[in-house]
Amino acid sequence: MSNIRHALNIKREDDFAAWYQEVISAADMAEDSGVRGCMVIKPWGYGIWERIQRLMDDRIKAAGVQNCYFPIFIPLANFEREAAHVEGFAKEMAVVTHHRLISDGKGGLIPDPEAKLEEPLVVRPTSETIIGDAMARWIQSWRDLPLLTNQWANVVRWEMRTRMFLRTSEFLWQEGHTAHADREDALKETHRALEMYRACAEEDLALPVVTGEKPENERFPGAVETWSIEAMMQDGKALQAGTSHYLGTNFAHAAGIKYQDREGTEQYCHTTSWGVSTRMVGGVIMTHGDDDGLRVPPRIAPHQIVILPMLREQPEDEALLAYCEEVRAGLASQGACGEPIRVLLDSRPGKAAAKRWDWVRKGAPLIVEVGPRDMEGGKVALLRRDRLWNTDNGKPNFAFTERAEFLSKAGGLLEEIQQGMFDEAAGRRDANITRGVTSMDEVAAFYDGSSKYPGWLEVQWSKPTGAALDKVVEQLKAHKLTIRNVPRDAESADGACIFTGEPAVERILIARAY
Amino acid sequence: MSNIRHALNIKREDDFAAWYQEVISAADMAEDSGVRGCMVIKPWGYGIWERIQRLMDDRIKAAGVQNCYFPIFIPLANFEREAAHVEGFAKEMAVVTHHRLISDGKGGLIPDPEAKLEEPLVVRPTSETIIGDAMARWIQSWRDLPLLTNQWANVVRWEMRTRMFLRTSEFLWQEGHTAHADREDALKETHRALEMYRACAEEDLALPVVTGEKPENERFPGAVETWSIEAMMQDGKALQAGTSHYLGTNFAHAAGIKYQDREGTEQYCHTTSWGVSTRMVGGVIMTHGDDDGLRVPPRIAPHQIVILPMLREQPEDEALLAYCEEVRAGLASQGACGEPIRVLLDSRPGKAAAKRWDWVRKGAPLIVEVGPRDMEGGKVALLRRDRLWNTDNGKPNFAFTERAEFLSKAGGLLEEIQQGMFDEAAGRRDANITRGVTSMDEVAAFYDGSSKYPGWLEVQWSKPTGAALDKVVEQLKAHKLTIRNVPRDAESADGACIFTGEPAVERILIARAY
Repeated sequence: MSNIRHALNIKREDDFAAWYQEVISAADMAEDSGVRGCMVIKPWGYGIWERIQRLMDDRIKAAGVQNCYFPIFIPLANFEREAAHVEGFAKEMAVVTHHRLISDGKGGLIPDPEAKLEEPLVVRPTSETIIGDAMARWIQSWRDLPLLTNQWANVVRWEMRTRMFLRTSEFLWQEGHTAHADREDALKETHRALEMYRACAEEDLALPVVTGEKPENERFPGAVETWSIEAMMQDGKALQAGTSHYLGTNFAHAAGIKYQDREGTEQYCHTTSWGVSTRMVGGVIMTHGDDDGLRVPPRIAPHQIVILPMLREQPEDEALLAYCEEVRAGLASQGACGEPIRVLLDSRPGKAAAKRWDWVRKGAPLIVEVGPRDMEGGKVALLRRDRLWNTDNGKPNFAFTERAEFLSKAGGLLEEIQQGMFDEAAGRRDANITRGVTSMDEVAAFYDGSSKYPGWLEVQWSKPTGAALDKVVEQLKAHKLTIRNVPRDAESADGACIFTGEPAVERILIARAY
Repeated sequence: MSNIRHALNIKREDDFAAWYQEVISAADMAEDSGVRGCMVIKPWGYGIWERIQRLMDDRIKAAGVQNCYFPIFIPLANFEREAAHVEGFAKEMAVVTHHRLISDGKGGLIPDPEAKLEEPLVVRPTSETIIGDAMARWIQSWRDLPLLTNQWANVVRWEMRTRMFLRTSEFLWQEGHTAHADREDALKETHRALEMYRACAEEDLALPVVTGEKPENERFPGAVETWSIEAMMQDGKALQAGTSHYLGTNFAHAAGIKYQDREGTEQYCHTTSWGVSTRMVGGVIMTHGDDDGLRVPPRIAPHQIVILPMLREQPEDEALLAYCEEVRAGLASQGACGEPIRVLLDSRPGKAAAKRWDWVRKGAPLIVEVGPRDMEGGKVALLRRDRLWNTDNGKPNFAFTERAEFLSKAGGLLEEIQQGMFDEAAGRRDANITRGVTSMDEVAAFYDGSSKYPGWLEVQWSKPTGAALDKVVEQLKAHKLTIRNVPRDAESADGACIFTGEPAVERILIARAY
């Protein structure tokens, strides 16, 4: 395999962080904007996000949740009234203080001192407090419940260290916000959203995840319970790819979200919130990318199949383009994964080989090259992005296929690729969750040992709280570790807590994380 | 007709502005958020916007324009370098000056003086200057042109007087930004976008528009040419529903958007920008609403058909619901206007008549009521929102229709309603453009006369510029009038300018406007 010349300069095993940046650049997904902490999402990166949006939105709507839009600006008073939430969020936010610019007399512009806002406005870091105001207006009686809303929006959290898609000051997301009559119904919604995220991550993004509850110290500010889906990246680190919160009556008390129950008694609502963001795109890169660039799972690929005619800027090109257009139309009329196949005929000028490597780096699932001889033979040359190389000769693994045969099997092939990508990632995740470690010393040895990508540990603990939990968090932090979640599907505890030695009550996942 | 009891309290003819607010509230489309100048867009209003987005986005993508996402924050320097643009935009914008809040020691929060930004950031009022930076990075050679980008985003313009959907401090829109090798290609794109807007407005929103060029004084800040689509509201006022700008090389010079042409010479790009916003929803209300609420054109209706079973909270309800579900499934499997029919079975508790009026006010195109007797007879009771009243008896105009017949004709019926709404609005527009006025005195008399909704005037002018134009603008302003545009399809001039008496060179539209 040493004779393969990969399409990227940096290999995952050499420098995973640098490789990540190279993929984003080589696949032309995003770039730094020059504005502090903000990125520009370019067409291929945004196209993947649009696909995620579409599929998630279908799931959200199918659950009876209705999309709305709430203001980007939140008055300070909304933060002031919710103490726990402020503590967690009020620190790093963009604050609007003026509503006008004037000339500084030296060719520049300054905020107009005459146009200072009486009360500064915060650019939303999340919208619980402003949507809480609306819920308080909208809900009067038990008949108004449950209230199920969602918005697709940009949010801003002033981040000191940013990394494209994973942590940026501005990012795009959806945030679901729901209100319920009681704890039981709100918890049901919290888990419905969590399960929706699991299904979208695994079925659409081919990201295998572990769903579970976050420990107390990792809860969303103001939440009673926070649940997450955690995905394993190829470097063994964890990525929190979505969260679902049961907020109890905390935000309802702060905003006055009340209803009259069937007996006419006034009650506070129980609320939930849940979100996924453009961070998911980072998870796709670090799960599916390889040393040739990105690989996009078919369900979220803006183009699932790219057809490349081998044009020669000759009159013969016309017949070749017509042949390729027939292939394109034949594919577009067929389905894969329940939708019409998304196919691009890339007839831009340029050499087919150069264009091929562009699409390899972008990770289009299937690349179809067609030259004059293929056309004469009624064939196409098929390159699967998930089986790019012929390891015998170190060359791209083209399969020359009859056109009719290809048309008939393309949809199935895309579904096979989707499933194969999930299986590969799930196998890697399962192989890299280690169990049986029984002390903090072993934890330290496991992570500070020779393994470059040690993966995750599933250990048992006694679920300490308060100061005792703080101590555990400190111990882990010394090794750059965090508790990811308490897996929903883990076996029950049967040993001692690795931190306290007391009888364990549950199992937790420990990992380094993004 | 006097025996009709309309569903709204306020009639259009009594107080059009108050009627507009009542429709928004009665159709549950949006409400004031409590945050200065920002509204909350509720599910029915947002659902209409989502439909507009989807249909416009399809048109944008079909033209080969690629969606991206650019930062919400724009550094001051970007505004400083483009003089004409600053002049038009730098006045009322939200300015971020701090990135952290701290306690004020009295239970409140204040911007942290330690966290003042070195350079304030502006919340984008439009993105020419920040996208210009990206274009300058992305474009090197003629091979990179044209560059066709678009983003769906929120923007903020600090407005003193706001009106829901029509003028809010924050609003949602799409902004297309393109770069071209020369004037000719950029102008072609300017007109392609304009034509796309016309088609979407007329075919999807059933909003008849007049396309034309804005006069010099109404140009977008920094533009060489600004073109618009103007729609006529039922009160005869004009609504600018979309604009397309040819920016010449102005923004290219400011941001350094250059390319090497085929001869190797460095050239500045010619750029364009074009946008439509949530304002269009306001146009739909004021064009199609009536004294019973909103009427939504089928192509942009979140639900095109609403089925209302007459439930009695009895065991018999089950069979009725099953019958309605069959009707729903039968409709959902059919198409209208090139898409599957969007049908809702509204089985919430509550009286069918009360729910009927909810959907009348919201403007669902077709309401289908089904009671036990209808079910037994294999029928449905059909109510067209565009023919709500039986004017003979002042009652809702139900048509009792065989189920099979209804299923077979529902798609065609929706298409007929769409066309009918367009024809009605186009007829009103055409009837309310008055020609033949030849002096400013006549203009004044026309608008200050007895007609409540005088509509638009098409007059001839000599196209004055500079100070002469300013004088015309002042004269019109005295009567609350503006020049809307120079209609693309108007006849050529053949008389004298109504302002200067000089030979006219073209015809312009004059109107009161939103």
